[in-house]
Amino acid sequence: MSLLVVGSIALDSVKTPSGKVDEALGGSAVYFSCAATMFNKARLVGVVGADFPKRYIDLLKKRGVDTKGLKIGEGKTFRWKGEYSNDLNTAHTVYTHLNVFADFKPEIPCEYRSSENVFLANIDPSLQLDVLKQVEKPRMIACDTMNYWIDNKAGELKKLLKHVHVFFSNDRECREFSGEHNLLKAARYIFSCGPKIAIIKKGEHGVLCVSKDFIFSYPAYILEDPFDPTGAGDTFAGGFMGYISKAKRVNEKELRRACAFGTILASYAVEDFSVNRLLRLTSKDIRERYAKFKKLMHICD
Amino acid sequence: MSLLVVGSIALDSVKTPSGKVDEALGGSAVYFSCAATMFNKARLVGVVGADFPKRYIDLLKKRGVDTKGLKIGEGKTFRWKGEYSNDLNTAHTVYTHLNVFADFKPEIPCEYRSSENVFLANIDPSLQLDVLKQVEKPRMIACDTMNYWIDNKAGELKKLLKHVHVFFSNDRECREFSGEHNLLKAARYIFSCGPKIAIIKKGEHGVLCVSKDFIFSYPAYILEDPFDPTGAGDTFAGGFMGYISKAKRVNEKELRRACAFGTILASYAVEDFSVNRLLRLTSKDIRERYAKFKKLMHICD
Repeated sequence: MSLLVVGSIALDSVKTPSGKVDEALGGSAVYFSCAATMFNKARLVGVVGADFPKRYIDLLKKRGVDTKGLKIGEGKTFRWKGEYSNDLNTAHTVYTHLNVFADFKPEIPCEYRSSENVFLANIDPSLQLDVLKQVEKPRMIACDTMNYWIDNKAGELKKLLKHVHVFFSNDRECREFSGEHNLLKAARYIFSCGPKIAIIKKGEHGVLCVSKDFIFSYPAYILEDPFDPTGAGDTFAGGFMGYISKAKRVNEKELRRACAFGTILASYAVEDFSVNRLLRLTSKDIRERYAKFKKLMHICD
Repeated sequence: MSLLVVGSIALDSVKTPSGKVDEALGGSAVYFSCAATMFNKARLVGVVGADFPKRYIDLLKKRGVDTKGLKIGEGKTFRWKGEYSNDLNTAHTVYTHLNVFADFKPEIPCEYRSSENVFLANIDPSLQLDVLKQVEKPRMIACDTMNYWIDNKAGELKKLLKHVHVFFSNDRECREFSGEHNLLKAARYIFSCGPKIAIIKKGEHGVLCVSKDFIFSYPAYILEDPFDPTGAGDTFAGGFMGYISKAKRVNEKELRRACAFGTILASYAVEDFSVNRLLRLTSKDIRERYAKFKKLMHICD
């Protein structure tokens, strides 16, 4: 089944204790797509500026990303510069230049309107709602958000959630949005807004998936030398949605697998800057780490 | 095989968002023993004051705790008063009155000296070392510590660790002690001090166990209404050591089970004040939650 993603495409400059990179390929929709295409093709809707390197577009195409929905606007591409301290837990933003992304109005090409799986990466919830007006009747609509929209557009976000099946957030955002510290209670609040499934990303502490009928919780895959955490959350969502978009049914078993694949893709993403590690990734790499991940949390009867 | 624990016995006054309790049975050795005795008898070495309620001693005896090593000193019992804020993550200490515990010099009764499994709960590392001088050749020596000793007695702690097989700490303490943020690197530092196994407790985020040959990571058991987190870490250690002291071999499989049992015992402990929930616990409760815990983190091939 088809998979559509709408989100940001950026040129990221990042400094971590391991090194630095300038104007590398980044943005939520890029990390998402590079992960999802390990399982399925991805239809990308986003905007870049006239300065966006053509080689990056070629790279995405080669990867299996359909770039028909990629608009090249007048002006410059969205740029972000960030630095991580030693613990890699928090990014200190040096600058965010929205550039062409400031006026982004997602236009879904005709061919994409029947997409069966839709991921609304973290953008203004009003725009996320606009996307939903342009698609037919997706089997699965998932969205991500961030504290900025929770603080400033809670009303729009709630309107959006009425249509959303799977809500991705990190633990902090989920607590802030729900006003509940306990994540089970927070998930219940999310269900009251519409979604049937809450996927709560906890960074180095793993992921918690809650539905009305089941719950599961995985630790993160443990790495000795994480390199650059940028995009880990979007990569998780990409692995998740890439896998689930190929699954015939969306049931507990497949959702567990999807979360495991999301975890594994994210663990690879943080091993290098930008999407570099994802681009070198093979199916064998994924299978191997899946087996190791399963073993990591195994207990006998 | 026999199990010895040396640690604190306290009267705890605790306030959480769910309620409060005054002068309830507490202390590291108490939580440890009440968990361990779900699997094995426990030999307790500690000190209380003349004011320590006899019914608490009776309660421990009834539980299967051998109190031959419990000294009743002149003076008052160790008292702690703490309050938790809404997130239950941090205890704000209102007071700590060490009382008789200030002069605690662990004396191991003759009958205990051949104990095969020894747990040194969080006390001054000099005293932990004193205990080791009094025991013969335990199969397993495990210890816990806290930031206070890491800051003030790092030398003694390192001396102790030369003799320790299993080192329990929480993630913050482990990072502080090793000077490494990454927990795998932190564990490697711990190995260089002596222990072969590092068990890193991460509270609501679960537990990580690292040895030279294997690693595993479990999420916490998810509760909607944790009541009082006091003693969760010591209960974890008690469940772990109680189980492992009955296991013929100390291998990866048994260590995984021990960590799972520790997690489950701790998840019960936080459902009520003091050791109340542990005292009501049945083997059936443990088996049921073990199965749920296994399912919580299950993924298919």
